[in-house]
Amino acid sequence: MPSVDVAGEFETIKRLLAPLAHPEWGRGLNDDVAVVPSRAGYDLVLTKDSIVEGVHFLAEDPMDTVAQKLLRVNLSDLAAKGAEPFGYLLGCFWSSRCGWPERKAFVAGLEADQTAFEVALLGGDTVTTPGPASFSLTLLGWIARGRAVGRDGARPGDVVLVTGAIGDGYLGLQAARGMLKLEPERLKALIDHYRTPMPRIAFAEQIRDRATAAIDVSDGLVADLGHLAAASDVALEIDLGTLPVSAAGHVWLDGRVDALDARVQLASGGDDYEIAFTARAGDEAELHREAARQHLRLTTIGRVVAGTGVTVRAAGAVVPVPTPGWTHR
Amino acid sequence: MPSVDVAGEFETIKRLLAPLAHPEWGRGLNDDVAVVPSRAGYDLVLTKDSIVEGVHFLAEDPMDTVAQKLLRVNLSDLAAKGAEPFGYLLGCFWSSRCGWPERKAFVAGLEADQTAFEVALLGGDTVTTPGPASFSLTLLGWIARGRAVGRDGARPGDVVLVTGAIGDGYLGLQAARGMLKLEPERLKALIDHYRTPMPRIAFAEQIRDRATAAIDVSDGLVADLGHLAAASDVALEIDLGTLPVSAAGHVWLDGRVDALDARVQLASGGDDYEIAFTARAGDEAELHREAARQHLRLTTIGRVVAGTGVTVRAAGAVVPVPTPGWTHR
Repeated sequence: MPSVDVAGEFETIKRLLAPLAHPEWGRGLNDDVAVVPSRAGYDLVLTKDSIVEGVHFLAEDPMDTVAQKLLRVNLSDLAAKGAEPFGYLLGCFWSSRCGWPERKAFVAGLEADQTAFEVALLGGDTVTTPGPASFSLTLLGWIARGRAVGRDGARPGDVVLVTGAIGDGYLGLQAARGMLKLEPERLKALIDHYRTPMPRIAFAEQIRDRATAAIDVSDGLVADLGHLAAASDVALEIDLGTLPVSAAGHVWLDGRVDALDARVQLASGGDDYEIAFTARAGDEAELHREAARQHLRLTTIGRVVAGTGVTVRAAGAVVPVPTPGWTHR
Repeated sequence: MPSVDVAGEFETIKRLLAPLAHPEWGRGLNDDVAVVPSRAGYDLVLTKDSIVEGVHFLAEDPMDTVAQKLLRVNLSDLAAKGAEPFGYLLGCFWSSRCGWPERKAFVAGLEADQTAFEVALLGGDTVTTPGPASFSLTLLGWIARGRAVGRDGARPGDVVLVTGAIGDGYLGLQAARGMLKLEPERLKALIDHYRTPMPRIAFAEQIRDRATAAIDVSDGLVADLGHLAAASDVALEIDLGTLPVSAAGHVWLDGRVDALDARVQLASGGDDYEIAFTARAGDEAELHREAARQHLRLTTIGRVVAGTGVTVRAAGAVVPVPTPGWTHR
């Protein structure tokens, strides 16, 4: 910042975004750059995710939750590394529907999440687009030197675990599109999850200390575990019967004719932003204790064996998963 | 990376972008994050600029130059800080016209510039959009701790200098739109400048060591100097007669009826990506010597005085500049 853009962009930076600037490193957004002191003994962890209206969020989604989702999908990436986020650069492509009230709402969402997740704006760019509103965010975090958790450390004998519940992102999208018939409070819970998923940064320290490999569940549990298995050159065996499902998800499951197919849908729907990870079997009990202490649901869903790919089982029988994740976004 | 996107996105990452990955820190783009060791004694300098088809580049622009322009406008921001760039995160919003050949061309442009400017891809995100093709880039660089050049260090008595020539970006956009009548080789030079401006990173060390304040010229020389003057709480006096103009620019100037108005247009047109900066008067001679050694054009265009704003003069008389920079992008 500042940007080569309409006068409204300067106002957006000055009046809306500058109050979010990192007090030391954001330079009041009066500069093209942020200057961040490097930290001896630490690695810098960076991620960048982008979202497009009509593709990654809906035109009807309130702008404050659009901003929160943008920040949170990036926070989720850092949580899966065991890293501690501290700041971000923001790229806004405002569409014609993004007037001052929409921009204010967007910034209010960021402000709430900056407090909740202890991150601050470092800089970025704001431009207008004749296309749909789109946003891009680069998130930065620190982790003690050499301690970032990769996808490649899973070894046969490890257990496979996942935080939270799986499938609410998938059901939440359907709920937001008016495609689900459930009680209003169930629909609201699902839509809330779709719009403002909860990145597991409070659990990042456990991931850093005890995960052998980790990934956040964005494409779909089975697809993302497939990425982890490939990077680690191992096979994963998952038991669908252990799949953690939310209260709303259980109500939805109860209404399905084919319960098995329904569980496969949840396990491959994506947008969960939970952390799927592997750990030494000897660390499993301590991980569950720590999760319980944090009131975080944590479920052991399978194990690591020699081989390749992800095998999904239900009651012992192999279940084919034709589409392990969202591939049409 | 990887992204939650169409199958083509995975292919784009794997086959096109992965070869550009930073050998140590890019993780082969097989991860959501880049992990960069922090560097004792250095500050990390970050910038993020975005471009939209039809707004910041033209639909007819070749995709390799679109990629180069994206990288270069960010490199220019770091050059003006005196920083040394090392890596970047890339956000691609591909439109329906971005098929495999267009993506390959885009990546070929990045590849050429990675070699030219010694930077490497660290990660990012690639998604599809129903809107115009858009791109976002976060660039990272190092600078010795505390040495990043701000906009706020100009003091009365300093001189104002600018690298290269001013106005070719402005004329180049008109040339690319077919709005200029000049010899083909002049038009080509201008269009080349518009599409692939030359960031002055080779001069960054001089900026770091001798500039009191600096800014890259993206909005327009007068507008950008206005940002610098405001941040430094000083006034700048610029002599239009000293404005450095390219050979093609001189030919264009010769064809204007109102020569003064034409110079004002060049000084407020933007897209130059030169560095405008201030320096102690005692450092002026050494800066010119160093620029000459690099075969880089460097021009003293004015001085810093007490007050506010930018005063533009020609032959001693004050020239009004109603629109000091591009404000409609």
